[in-house]
Parts: sequence; C-alpha cells; structure tokens
Amino acid sequence: MTFTIQTVSKQFDEKIQAKIDGKTKPIGALGQLETIAKNLARVQAMVTSQVDSLVISYPSLIIFAGDHGVASEGVSIAPSEVTGQMVANFAMGGAAINVFCRQLGWQLSVVDAGILNEPDAQLNVINQRLGCITQPLHQAPAMTLTTVEQGFAMAKGLIKQTKENGSNLVAFGEMGIGNTTSASAIMAAIMQLSAEETVGKGTGVSDDVVLKKQKVVTQALKLHRDKLAEPTQLLACLGGFEIVQITGAMLAAAEENMHVLVDGFICTAAAMVAIQINPTVKDYMIFAHCSGEQGHQKMLEWLDVEPLLNLGLRLGEGTGGALALPLIQAAAAFYNDMASFEQADVTNVV
Amino acid sequence: MTFTIQTVSKQFDEKIQAKIDGKTKPIGALGQLETIAKNLARVQAMVTSQVDSLVISYPSLIIFAGDHGVASEGVSIAPSEVTGQMVANFAMGGAAINVFCRQLGWQLSVVDAGILNEPDAQLNVINQRLGCITQPLHQAPAMTLTTVEQGFAMAKGLIKQTKENGSNLVAFGEMGIGNTTSASAIMAAIMQLSAEETVGKGTGVSDDVVLKKQKVVTQALKLHRDKLAEPTQLLACLGGFEIVQITGAMLAAAEENMHVLVDGFICTAAAMVAIQINPTVKDYMIFAHCSGEQGHQKMLEWLDVEPLLNLGLRLGEGTGGALALPLIQAAAAFYNDMASFEQADVTNVV
Repeated sequence: MTFTIQTVSKQFDEKIQAKIDGKTKPIGALGQLETIAKNLARVQAMVTSQVDSLVISYPSLIIFAGDHGVASEGVSIAPSEVTGQMVANFAMGGAAINVFCRQLGWQLSVVDAGILNEPDAQLNVINQRLGCITQPLHQAPAMTLTTVEQGFAMAKGLIKQTKENGSNLVAFGEMGIGNTTSASAIMAAIMQLSAEETVGKGTGVSDDVVLKKQKVVTQALKLHRDKLAEPTQLLACLGGFEIVQITGAMLAAAEENMHVLVDGFICTAAAMVAIQINPTVKDYMIFAHCSGEQGHQKMLEWLDVEPLLNLGLRLGEGTGGALALPLIQAAAAFYNDMASFEQADVTNVV
Repeated sequence: MTFTIQTVSKQFDEKIQAKIDGKTKPIGALGQLETIAKNLARVQAMVTSQVDSLVISYPSLIIFAGDHGVASEGVSIAPSEVTGQMVANFAMGGAAINVFCRQLGWQLSVVDAGILNEPDAQLNVINQRLGCITQPLHQAPAMTLTTVEQGFAMAKGLIKQTKENGSNLVAFGEMGIGNTTSASAIMAAIMQLSAEETVGKGTGVSDDVVLKKQKVVTQALKLHRDKLAEPTQLLACLGGFEIVQITGAMLAAAEENMHVLVDGFICTAAAMVAIQINPTVKDYMIFAHCSGEQGHQKMLEWLDVEPLLNLGLRLGEGTGGALALPLIQAAAAFYNDMASFEQADVTNVV
C-alpha cells in the first residue's frame, strides 16, 4: 500500500512568522509554543489556504492493542493476559488514559489489533484483529508481509473515518505486553545500534530481565538481518500488530493532512518506520514527550525533534500524547487570540 | 510581619503511596505526576484530614506589576512605560497570560504593585501601589523596610480574599521592565554567585546590555553587601514592588494551606526569598517550569526541585505557571479516578 502525502508547504512562512512576531511579547518569548504554532499553521494552510487562524478540532486518541509472541520469553513484568485485561479497563474507562482523555477533551477509541483473547463483545472495542498473537520475533518473522499490508489498510480506514468525524489531530496509544522488546528491535535495526544500546526496563523489569530482552533482540536482529533494510519487511519481522497499525495510521493521517501527535517509545518506533516509508510524514508530526524508557531520548535525538514534555512517564497507552494536548491548544490560542502591539497600543521595541 | 506556616505532615504518606501504587499501572509509571499527586495529598490532608480524593478549586493566577528605577540604566529592551501598557493589555484581555487563563480555567487578577503611571481607573486592576518606581538598586536601597512590610501586608490581604473565594491553588505572574536585573541580584545574593553567573538576556537584550546588567548587579551587591544576609533587608535593597508582594503572597498562601505554583525566573527569585524567611513554605510549592532565562535552571538545581515544563518560555506574566495547570489537574485526576487493580480485575504483577 502506498501513501500519498503532500509536502508541507513553506510558502506562508513569512506571513506566519510576522503574525507571531506581531503579538505583544518579545520575539521568540513563547519558546516551543511558537514552533508548534508554526507547524500547525503550515499544515492547516494546505487545507484552508489561510494562516489567519488555527483550529484543533475533535482531537482523537486511538489506542491499538496487540499481543507479542516474545512475551512468553519472560521479557515483561506481566503475562500476555494483561493486554486483554487492560483493553477491558480502557473500554470501561478505568485506566490512566481514560482519566486524561476525559479531563482534556480527547475522543478515545480502543482498537483490538490482535490480542490473545478476543475482548467481550459488549465492550466498545473496534475489531481490527490481525491475529491473536505475533510469532516470537527471535525465532521467526513476527507476521507475514500480507498481514502488514492488511494492518495498513485497516488503519487507513479508521483514520478516514476519524477525519470524517471532524478531527484534524490524532494521537496514538498502545498496549501490548512485550512491545518494548519489539520497539527496541526496530530502533536497533533503524538506528544501527546494538541491543545493549536500545533495550531498557520497559514498564519496570529487573536487570536480569533486561539481559534476557537484550539476548532476544540480538537474536532477532541476526535472524532477520537480510530483510531489515526495507521498512515493511522490517515491520513484518520485528513489529507487533499494534505497531503495524500505528505506523499505517500515522501515514494515513498525514495523507489526510491531519496533525499526528507522537507519544512515547513504542509510538516513536512506529513513527521511525513511517518516516522510513515516507519521510514527508515527519512534517505532520508533533512529538509529545520524552518517556522514562532509556532508548526514547536517543530516538528523539536521532530524529532531531524536541518533545513538549519530559515527565518521566513510562506507562504507554498514549498518556504522554494525551497530556500534551493543552500545550498544542495553547499554541493555537496565542496565535489566534493574543493582541498585536498595534491592537493593544503597546510600544514595540524590537 | 511573621507568617505562621504549618509543617506539611508526612503522617499519611504510606496511605497515599498505597493508593497510588494500587492504580492499574506499573509502580512509578506516571513519573512526575505521582510526585505532584503526593504533594497535593499531603497539603490537602492538613485541611481535610483525608487522602481519599484531591481537589483543585478555583485556581487563581495573580499578576503583580511594578516598575524598577534601574530600568533607566538601559538594562531592558523596553522603557518603563511598557510595564503600564502591558498592565492595560492584561486588563483588556489581550496578552499571552489572558489567552492561557481563558483556555485553562484560571481566575486572573492584575495587581498594580507600583508602576510608573497609575492605570486608567476604569481598568480592572487592583490598587496595591507601594510607589511609582523603585530606587535604582545600584545607587540606593530599592525601597525602605517599611515598604517591604507594607507590601507583605497587602499581599496577605489579597491571598486571604482569594482563599475566601474558594481557591486552594494560587500562581503568580509578574510584569516589570527591569525586573530580571532585580531577580539576578537577588539570586546572586542568596546563592553567593557573581553577576556574571546570574545575569541573562531577560526578554532578549543584546550582549552589550548583558554586560551593563552585570555591572549594575555587581555594584548593587557591593553597595548593599552588609544587609543581604537578612531576607527582608535583601528585598528592600534589591527587590521590586512586585517581587516583594509575590514573596509575601507565597508565604501567606502557605499560611492558608494553599498550593503555591511557582512560575519562572522572577517568581523563583521571590520563592527563594520566601524560603529564606520561612523554609516551610517550600513544601507548599510546585515548580511549574524552567524558563529560557539562563539563571533559572541554576536556581532550580540549587533549590533541588524538578519543574514540570521546560518549553524555553521567557515571557514572564505567569505564563509557565498557567500552562502547568493541566498537569496538576491530571495528577489529581489519576489519583481520584483511575481504577485500582482490584476494581478493574487486572492482574497486579508487582
């Protein structure tokens, strides 16, 4: 599946900068919020052909959940069953991400991208199952290429619908016991690092388990070494059902000229694959936070991006993305609503 | 004036920690939000004698504005008149802080703590004038000790009223051309640093002006050296009318068992003086952000505190404090509303 993503135009940059610099504040004094405002304005101009005002409409957060064969190697603090239990918790509204979405005004959707036990039919979970668990990535490709393509198609469908619902900003969350192992392997493959440099404590495993994770990742990188240069092959070998769908959803959202808010370690791994597939997607991305997972900071540096938050979160679920929303709204709000020097009759000294 | 501040009790710590650790997330996975939740719970327990639920009510942001005699030395990008122009802008709702307060639900008040030209009587500005401009701090004490005490008393009255309005969290903003010079001098005096180590670019002055600021601060430190060990004397010598009132307001808010949200460079200078006056006040403080002003990071390290945001803001007005509110509300929300492992029937693996 190909994604046709428009290059983000810089044609309005001067106009955008003049608008920002005309506000009653010293030049640059709103720091990263000014960068975000510029990013929002560039992307929105492609749809609206104007940069006079910005809008964040129906911010949507989609959690993709998937189970990982590698979990049975004991690379996580929890067994695979917990993925399904947490999906139920999301559907019932009890998890951290539910609390933050309610507080901050996110539309939350939960997608079963392929978890061990199918969720109870009464639960409000979107069925986009690619299987019930991936193959253990150190022993076989996690899934087939066909499954990757199927995941992309499903993700694209969901994004189209999200756009039709009126959303112009989408964030992703994930749940999947074992998925920091998968993300560490993806990171190692793309950044050409060793397992020692990419594997961390995930949600909080012991040093012994970190060693086990490193061993598994090293094996996986060796096993699939001939296939990792091509990003969909890389996903098939090292990915997870949720990671595949997040990658596809990011590309699809950029195709729809939507803002893509990137959460923590797992979502950044997906973002890295998406950028490998089509580098233009990066211009649609806003990086929400730097997580407590050791490799995440390195990823962000490699991508040369500055996240909005750094709160030591290591929960996943999209919590970092969720918490960044008020800052993005603040960027739009100052851009739209602050008085100019002229309007406020304040001496512009610059 | 003395401030009687209750020691924040740690008697409920075990109960608070158990509640946080029982939530459906790995231990510690919400990073700094868990620290904030603990802080909120400790302080609120002193009023409510319970730690079952937290509340953030009528968050109030008070901007204190004052003019600085030292501004005529050309230490800022703008002349003193801009202080009053910005106060009018605050009162008319056009500044960055207005935009963020409207977006995030802050109650905003604007206080004239002593600016050059009295604001138009029709504007909604609280009159707590301590004068129209301070003495240039490198030539004389900025104000008398009596003025400092008067500022404390006024600030205390305003905080009492804010509390009576139902608020339990207060943040402070400031406006005052020249006030980074005053704050740098306060920082240097308390941390025993040279002007070179504390003076930065403020809202964006040139390197030449930085040198001028450093010279002025060095002169001030030398002139008042015998008086700087005592914090109210220090304020009288090096402070500003707005800095004095913020210091008093922080102490008064702690006295009322309110949460005190500390903004950027100027407010942190006030916080440092407040802590010198009564160290207990620190337990009521939450540090909102690390600003782009070079000395701020050093102050925060010296205080051994971790700010919530680091967005390169260097605007003042309380903007960093304003933007931190959703994170504080998120801390209260997860504490109150997240399901426990038991409630959600999720396997607790720790």
